[in-house]
Amino acid sequence: MAMKIAYVVPGPMSKGPMGRTEMQRREALMNGWAFDGTEVSVIDVPSGPASIESAYEEMLAIPPTLDLIMECEKKGFDAAIIGCFGDPGLEAARELVTMPVVGPCESAMLLAAALGHKFSVLTIFESLIAGQEMLAVHAGVRAKLASVRPTDIPVLELMADPEVTKARLIDVARACVEQDRADALLFGCMTMSFLDMGDEIAAEVGVPVVNAGRAAVKHAEMLVSMGLAHSKKAWPTPAKMKAGKTASDMRVA
Amino acid sequence: MAMKIAYVVPGPMSKGPMGRTEMQRREALMNGWAFDGTEVSVIDVPSGPASIESAYEEMLAIPPTLDLIMECEKKGFDAAIIGCFGDPGLEAARELVTMPVVGPCESAMLLAAALGHKFSVLTIFESLIAGQEMLAVHAGVRAKLASVRPTDIPVLELMADPEVTKARLIDVARACVEQDRADALLFGCMTMSFLDMGDEIAAEVGVPVVNAGRAAVKHAEMLVSMGLAHSKKAWPTPAKMKAGKTASDMRVA
Amino acid sequence: MAMKIAYVVPGPMSKGPMGRTEMQRREALMNGWAFDGTEVSVIDVPSGPASIESAYEEMLAIPPTLDLIMECEKKGFDAAIIGCFGDPGLEAARELVTMPVVGPCESAMLLAAALGHKFSVLTIFESLIAGQEMLAVHAGVRAKLASVRPTDIPVLELMADPEVTKARLIDVARACVEQDRADALLFGCMTMSFLDMGDEIAAEVGVPVVNAGRAAVKHAEMLVSMGLAHSKKAWPTPAKMKAGKTASDMRVA
Amino acid sequence: MAMKIAYVVPGPMSKGPMGRTEMQRREALMNGWAFDGTEVSVIDVPSGPASIESAYEEMLAIPPTLDLIMECEKKGFDAAIIGCFGDPGLEAARELVTMPVVGPCESAMLLAAALGHKFSVLTIFESLIAGQEMLAVHAGVRAKLASVRPTDIPVLELMADPEVTKARLIDVARACVEQDRADALLFGCMTMSFLDMGDEIAAEVGVPVVNAGRAAVKHAEMLVSMGLAHSKKAWPTPAKMKAGKTASDMRVA
Amino acid sequence: MAMKIAYVVPGPMSKGPMGRTEMQRREALMNGWAFDGTEVSVIDVPSGPASIESAYEEMLAIPPTLDLIMECEKKGFDAAIIGCFGDPGLEAARELVTMPVVGPCESAMLLAAALGHKFSVLTIFESLIAGQEMLAVHAGVRAKLASVRPTDIPVLELMADPEVTKARLIDVARACVEQDRADALLFGCMTMSFLDMGDEIAAEVGVPVVNAGRAAVKHAEMLVSMGLAHSKKAWPTPAKMKAGKTASDMRVA
Amino acid sequence: MAMKIAYVVPGPMSKGPMGRTEMQRREALMNGWAFDGTEVSVIDVPSGPASIESAYEEMLAIPPTLDLIMECEKKGFDAAIIGCFGDPGLEAARELVTMPVVGPCESAMLLAAALGHKFSVLTIFESLIAGQEMLAVHAGVRAKLASVRPTDIPVLELMADPEVTKARLIDVARACVEQDRADALLFGCMTMSFLDMGDEIAAEVGVPVVNAGRAAVKHAEMLVSMGLAHSKKAWPTPAKMKAGKTASDMRVA
Repeated sequence: MAMKIAYVVPGPMSKGPMGRTEMQRREALMNGWAFDGTEVSVIDVPSGPASIESAYEEMLAIPPTLDLIMECEKKGFDAAIIGCFGDPGLEAARELVTMPVVGPCESAMLLAAALGHKFSVLTIFESLIAGQEMLAVHAGVRAKLASVRPTDIPVLELMADPEVTKARLIDVARACVEQDRADALLFGCMTMSFLDMGDEIAAEVGVPVVNAGRAAVKHAEMLVSMGLAHSKKAWPTPAKMKAGKTASDMRVA
Repeated sequence: MAMKIAYVVPGPMSKGPMGRTEMQRREALMNGWAFDGTEVSVIDVPSGPASIESAYEEMLAIPPTLDLIMECEKKGFDAAIIGCFGDPGLEAARELVTMPVVGPCESAMLLAAALGHKFSVLTIFESLIAGQEMLAVHAGVRAKLASVRPTDIPVLELMADPEVTKARLIDVARACVEQDRADALLFGCMTMSFLDMGDEIAAEVGVPVVNAGRAAVKHAEMLVSMGLAHSKKAWPTPAKMKAGKTASDMRVA
Repeated sequence: MAMKIAYVVPGPMSKGPMGRTEMQRREALMNGWAFDGTEVSVIDVPSGPASIESAYEEMLAIPPTLDLIMECEKKGFDAAIIGCFGDPGLEAARELVTMPVVGPCESAMLLAAALGHKFSVLTIFESLIAGQEMLAVHAGVRAKLASVRPTDIPVLELMADPEVTKARLIDVARACVEQDRADALLFGCMTMSFLDMGDEIAAEVGVPVVNAGRAAVKHAEMLVSMGLAHSKKAWPTPAKMKAGKTASDMRVA
Repeated sequence: MAMKIAYVVPGPMSKGPMGRTEMQRREALMNGWAFDGTEVSVIDVPSGPASIESAYEEMLAIPPTLDLIMECEKKGFDAAIIGCFGDPGLEAARELVTMPVVGPCESAMLLAAALGHKFSVLTIFESLIAGQEMLAVHAGVRAKLASVRPTDIPVLELMADPEVTKARLIDVARACVEQDRADALLFGCMTMSFLDMGDEIAAEVGVPVVNAGRAAVKHAEMLVSMGLAHSKKAWPTPAKMKAGKTASDMRVA
Repeated sequence: MAMKIAYVVPGPMSKGPMGRTEMQRREALMNGWAFDGTEVSVIDVPSGPASIESAYEEMLAIPPTLDLIMECEKKGFDAAIIGCFGDPGLEAARELVTMPVVGPCESAMLLAAALGHKFSVLTIFESLIAGQEMLAVHAGVRAKLASVRPTDIPVLELMADPEVTKARLIDVARACVEQDRADALLFGCMTMSFLDMGDEIAAEVGVPVVNAGRAAVKHAEMLVSMGLAHSKKAWPTPAKMKAGKTASDMRVA
Repeated sequence: MAMKIAYVVPGPMSKGPMGRTEMQRREALMNGWAFDGTEVSVIDVPSGPASIESAYEEMLAIPPTLDLIMECEKKGFDAAIIGCFGDPGLEAARELVTMPVVGPCESAMLLAAALGHKFSVLTIFESLIAGQEMLAVHAGVRAKLASVRPTDIPVLELMADPEVTKARLIDVARACVEQDRADALLFGCMTMSFLDMGDEIAAEVGVPVVNAGRAAVKHAEMLVSMGLAHSKKAWPTPAKMKAGKTASDMRVA
């Protein structure tokens, strides 16, 4: 079963400090995780915020991301992953295309829901907790969320000293397990996920750890292989598009 | 108590079919509803979608709306109202400014919550129901929502024949009251609200009807007069801005 | 816009230790908070419990409070505030009159709901926590309540040494913010509210603090200025009154 | 096991149309339902509303009911039942005495909860639905409530023509079972319960029917026989009483 | 009122370390708790797991327990209690018989629900917490559950040194009351219940303590005396049995 | 990526009317749905109920199913699917093995949760509705469940006349979409799923339809390919097994 999946980075990553090298590293990781026949391509938007650390930056990132997802469908991709744990623009994207669009947060939470009674999310900052709790409401699994705990290492410093990062992640993971009774964990940040330390952390704290990037790839593969996509009743094509307007017609300057 | 409130229209209304005339009519209505000393100004964004009928158009509308809200704060406004029932960009706007920013949906739902045991929302299309139920979750009053029912009259046709519209609104309102046991109603669309037919409909169906535009003006006045604004702990200034970057610095082209 | 609001104290405060002086001080505070044209009058019931510290005292306080609210409507008041944070008799009062009746707890909780993701209530004793959690259920915003924490200073001692009280309030407020992740706070006691220390405490702990008395005044002003009152479908006039009986006819001796 | 249970009628029933005859009929019914050794006495308050059809009448009824419950404890009763389905004053009564106090609504709902997946309540008027839904929240079993449906026969007419009443009850019961998927039913009115038609209705509609009066008697017997009473941590003795004041001391005239 | 209640032990207790002596001790305790005329018989299944410490052992225990319950009904018992706090097989048993079948967990939780605002459960191991939380969902009173806390004494060691056990139970009970704000407690294990230390622990920690075995006896007595049993609409007789098959016909070997 | 998945039928299907032919047909279907390298084997238990139409039959089916799952792990399977929509024995199975064990109901519900705002389940009989609602609670996605509707065609008649069945399924599916606002559907019965009519029904009613059997295969493949299995903290190995006992040691005869 051959399929092409676009991993759409909602920021101009190739122009930033991580650059194309990191994009290629992530692409290689995802292709390594995929089933035979699946090809994952990492593509970034041409402009937008350097990173997404606030609702404001998320809102700036969405319009170019939606344009890119429409373009991916036209280019023949079978599915798209929105490459940010906040799943920015997920509902709007589902209005615009008929191929499956998945968000790593939704994918990872639904996967973690079946791994135990409750799961916790490791996030970056305390200011993100409320938003990630609301993402669990959107995913429909709020009842399964034990806690969201911050690690307090900024995204760009996560890769600076992997051993320091790992030690911190283990400490916070242990608090989730011991104090919040989490049976499973997930990384609430793509950079944290792509550190690919889940197995080591799972071994330390004794519960499964979900890599949100890997979960999103599997979710996309599952949908494509089943011939399923999101409901167009839930996310219908915008009325003006149905009436023949293009995306650019819809912007009045 | 003197205060200046900006009613920010998240689309280029002055360039559209309703135009400046309708903006002025709405401004006059709101100033008529306000307490003495309050001055409401209706301002639209320079570009964006002609109207918001989908999540996609909502996402397109948000970035210019946020720019305009920041500008309003700089110009000395005391509060801003986001002029669309979906409250587009509300959380991001609260990150960017310290003056109160209110959304008509949140304002109207919190007001309706105290008018009875349950309230219903009259919306435009069936495809908007799930989104408005989620807005009630965000407002914290999902437990008070009896139902969301569509009227099936497109926004631009609402003003075409007021008697036809009123008859339809009364029919749907009655269904909310009789079948869903709503004790109060609110209009889930600003154009519906600005038809200013609430009192007539309330008289027909026997329950109070909340005009979301009017509720937003009162909510803004309430906050300004109390010296209160949203919590910066809940919606902190984006870290890059705290570090000195401007909004335009934050967009990488 | 001129309006008269009755702040009905559900105990014979003028006969108690706080006396008329405190009633006048509160009246002055509320008139200072009000919009131009609003006149707030503080009125107490002739008899009842000296203070409300239990469900029993609340039940004793309600019948004279309801009589007084009916009298206020007859005297031409435009709205009534029930002057106790437990909102005693709120639903019954709404059956008896058509002018708006607001309760400080409901008003303050609905106001706080929009200030952040979650709010906490500072109350007097631990025995009041469950009741105030249930008040949040009644207000419809239980999902927004972070916690209720007791300050353990009896009502009558709150005014004894303002600095001691303030220090305690700050400590408890900080626990709400740091341990329960509250983004906003409210005082769950009218005497605590009328100490008028909200701004100082907000400055210390970094989140907005809602004065329940002030919130109730604003809520009443909002409703009157909008021409709205509670739904008579939700709280209908008692059947015997509809059939012509007076309140005193309804008591069989 | 010998015990004395007071069934406290929160209105001056002996002075009303039903009179002492009906009180004696109910007393006989309850003694017939009781275990050997249990003696149930029906006692009414000296004054208050003729019947409870509104929150207002409920509030008027509570103070004399609380006085009577305190008196019953002094006279040696082992438990009290509040003889109205709205459980008026239940929480306050539990503050004032240490013997168990039960309310027919709470007793019947907790009993019905174990009879099936969901239960429905047959009530008098539509205006009572929201209140009885809230009683299910207070009882903790809101998740088990299928529906509350009105029968639209006023309390005083329930006994007028038993066959007419029974036919209506069966119709409404059937709607609960067939449309709301109720597996069990309960009468949300004491007069309805004391018609003692539960078995006939159960036979017609095929699900068990709980008589709230009978459930309350059993609940009281259960608690007394187990040596249990409500938690004084949940409903502590009012502080002024702990400090030595009597109930009448607590009323300032 | 005479009735016979079977307390069905879902393991071959008579063949295990506790043996017939402990069965007789429990039978005597239950008969001591019962109303006059009630006769409780303790009966165990012929084979199955020695004790139930996992979902696996629970699943093994259910088929013989169901056989025994059917046999009890044929022998003329009026009700059955499933003698394990996990209520194993409760729903299946209700399909198979028309006499009431109660489970100690459900009985105890519904009883505790009315004793205060929230109750806690003392259980054996941390691994049982999630399951007991789900039992509260099944009972319909999840909203009333303050916490489940493990005592960490294995079932078979509970009776080894009663003073050690009592001290541990008091410690954990106190944590429930002080840290989780429980107003009432219940023992989440039959062996813990049959230690019959509830009153001593209640005296120490100041809140009522429910013995699940005693609650189940009272629940069964209540149902039998009211002529009530679980709804056959909720738990219908299996279709093959309705069509004439016996339980053994239904097993294909 | 090569893996072996056991589809464990919890009844002696090979001895029943569907027989080995149907087992082989299902095996072929599943292998057709699988990714390259996956091999699915359909295996049934030696004895148990002919079909599962009640909680009783479910309880009878579980012990042999658990034995077979343990055996599958020993034989080198990488994962097991419990071949019944009720997911019988899922939690116990997860205690007994470390390879992933999935249940079609949980798998299908978590998959459907991301396809729209709400999904509905098509089940066999009305008596199964409450149980399937509870399965949604267990899966953690109760908030996403629009409805469960019965088709009223007994399992064994589903295959009798495929056109009749399809017409009925379409009618019920349409009711879910139009009356309950479901955006997606799933078959709550394995025989219904293996009719493999999802695409035709989806085309008729306009929303995606999930085949529970196919979802379970994908869920198992996802977990195996990610190196993940359920949390042993959530479902620990039974203590007696940890101490060295075998499954048969644990049954006292």
